[in-house]
Amino acid sequence: MKPANKRSWVLKQRPASVPTRADVDIIESPVPETPDNHLLIATSYFSLDPAIRGWMSDTPSYLPPIGLGEPIRATVAGTVVESRSPDFTAGDRVYGMSGWETLCTAPADYFSKIPEDSPFPDHYYLSILGAVGLTPYFGLLSAGDIKSGQTLLMSAAAGAVGSIGGQIAKIKGLRVVGLAGSDEKCQWVTEELGFDDCLNYKTCGDLEAAIRRACPEGVDVFFDNVGGETLDAALMNLNKDATVVFCGSISSYNSSEPVPGPYNWWQVLARSVTVKGYLISDYLTRFGEGQAQLTQWLQADQLTFKEHIVDGFDHCLEAYNLLFEGKNNGKLMVKV
Amino acid sequence: MKPANKRSWVLKQRPASVPTRADVDIIESPVPETPDNHLLIATSYFSLDPAIRGWMSDTPSYLPPIGLGEPIRATVAGTVVESRSPDFTAGDRVYGMSGWETLCTAPADYFSKIPEDSPFPDHYYLSILGAVGLTPYFGLLSAGDIKSGQTLLMSAAAGAVGSIGGQIAKIKGLRVVGLAGSDEKCQWVTEELGFDDCLNYKTCGDLEAAIRRACPEGVDVFFDNVGGETLDAALMNLNKDATVVFCGSISSYNSSEPVPGPYNWWQVLARSVTVKGYLISDYLTRFGEGQAQLTQWLQADQLTFKEHIVDGFDHCLEAYNLLFEGKNNGKLMVKV
Repeated sequence: MKPANKRSWVLKQRPASVPTRADVDIIESPVPETPDNHLLIATSYFSLDPAIRGWMSDTPSYLPPIGLGEPIRATVAGTVVESRSPDFTAGDRVYGMSGWETLCTAPADYFSKIPEDSPFPDHYYLSILGAVGLTPYFGLLSAGDIKSGQTLLMSAAAGAVGSIGGQIAKIKGLRVVGLAGSDEKCQWVTEELGFDDCLNYKTCGDLEAAIRRACPEGVDVFFDNVGGETLDAALMNLNKDATVVFCGSISSYNSSEPVPGPYNWWQVLARSVTVKGYLISDYLTRFGEGQAQLTQWLQADQLTFKEHIVDGFDHCLEAYNLLFEGKNNGKLMVKV
Repeated sequence: MKPANKRSWVLKQRPASVPTRADVDIIESPVPETPDNHLLIATSYFSLDPAIRGWMSDTPSYLPPIGLGEPIRATVAGTVVESRSPDFTAGDRVYGMSGWETLCTAPADYFSKIPEDSPFPDHYYLSILGAVGLTPYFGLLSAGDIKSGQTLLMSAAAGAVGSIGGQIAKIKGLRVVGLAGSDEKCQWVTEELGFDDCLNYKTCGDLEAAIRRACPEGVDVFFDNVGGETLDAALMNLNKDATVVFCGSISSYNSSEPVPGPYNWWQVLARSVTVKGYLISDYLTRFGEGQAQLTQWLQADQLTFKEHIVDGFDHCLEAYNLLFEGKNNGKLMVKV
């Protein structure tokens, strides 16, 4: 039975900093007819990612900005209510790109089916078997081309991507040093996840010197989710021919002023560094391969991960801002 | 006959900006005994390169800073006066890394022999058959991995490296657009060297928009000798999966303040760009291959290049600063 109305979080104006209730709003509207090759999906979970903040701005990026009045773009999971695509039927569990809405109308090719025999709940496909697991998987194995014996420096090590990434690198035989913002986070990644070391960047003093002590043989691969001073400190510790996987820059997302690139930019040349701008969407055709390997590691109990699920459609905005306060504890999602 | 004394340009203090006579000085000193595995070389030409300015500072780089009181480091050409190496004999013509001195005592393995049958004068081995030709050769063919049909944007297009690089890219079938600082330079690279277009960055107005007009299909490879605003304008015109060959950053060499990286740093991620920090010294073992190809192109009259040779050891400093005034006209060298 197709519901008559849906509720949506929409963008009212472009945020100057951390998004507020003046920037986004909840509206109720009729559910439109489902066009050919589209799906109507009853959403079960939304993914809350730093990247969404970028799409709220009008800086040119890898996806167009969210239009004013349009739903907040996000990856979502849910169940097909109505299918006008030959590839899906009502009742299929799916995940893909749409928005913060109770019901989404979306092109069928934006969505993938959750295998019928999958033992995993919907939200796994927004976390460990979605971008959270696949981002570090391809970022390290393809973009970063990691090798056993190397040293990996992982920023935002207790974050969703960083914590999985460090574990993948440990499975692959690297020395892994993390950066995180509290002693509790550092303790979690070293004691629970098996990182070799983790620095609390808020209390370690001179970060560049602290990284040097923790990485006595230098850094071969830096996985950057953060940018800013963290990137600058990392650059001064890179080995010759090192790789920077440039995956994100959360330190700059809420700035309304132009943010400069790293002050230690020269080190990219001086150390023959390769910087790889890295987008998980470039690996779409290889998602199956990544999910198969991650499933195997999950079933062998080799990966630990945390999900932070906030209950209730109405709480999307306050949940979202936990990201910028560093207060989420694991991959952040909303249960609709 | 071994001379008793030599003259040397030495570093007195680290320059705050463009080097002045307060920073460097000429001294006369006795020629030391030549140690085992070293050469004493009577220099014929010095190479004057932007990189020297970096070595005058104490910023960590790919070579240690020039020590205070030490000769200004440079590539030089000359003739062996005394050899204590089995690989060289007095009278050999050579080129390699030493300093601005009338006579250099240097490890033999810092030098290469000019082939006895070479029809080319010494200074060719500091220009087209030295770093000036080899830098764009490996920078484009290896680091940049250029392909026929791509668009190359070349900064400092009328400079020594840029002008050769653009011609190599034309031989390889690319569309080549240059950036230069005067209409005369632009005219030279388009009319004499065969670049498809060249923008005068001083008069073109909005550089980002001008590049967009000149590269309607976007930029696949940006060869960066300049950094700063030029790099920022280039980043906004890169195609997805483009490459930036980071070869130099002359816009920042004389700054005494920390210089930020590109403000459009985010575009590296948003466009899945690869930035390659590029040092010609990483290709030392392949110099023979590069020289053979460049010689073939020279003999087939496919490469045009300019040398700007200043006469007289005493004029090194004023000659050097022509680089920062943009007043050199071709590869800058001093004839001793």
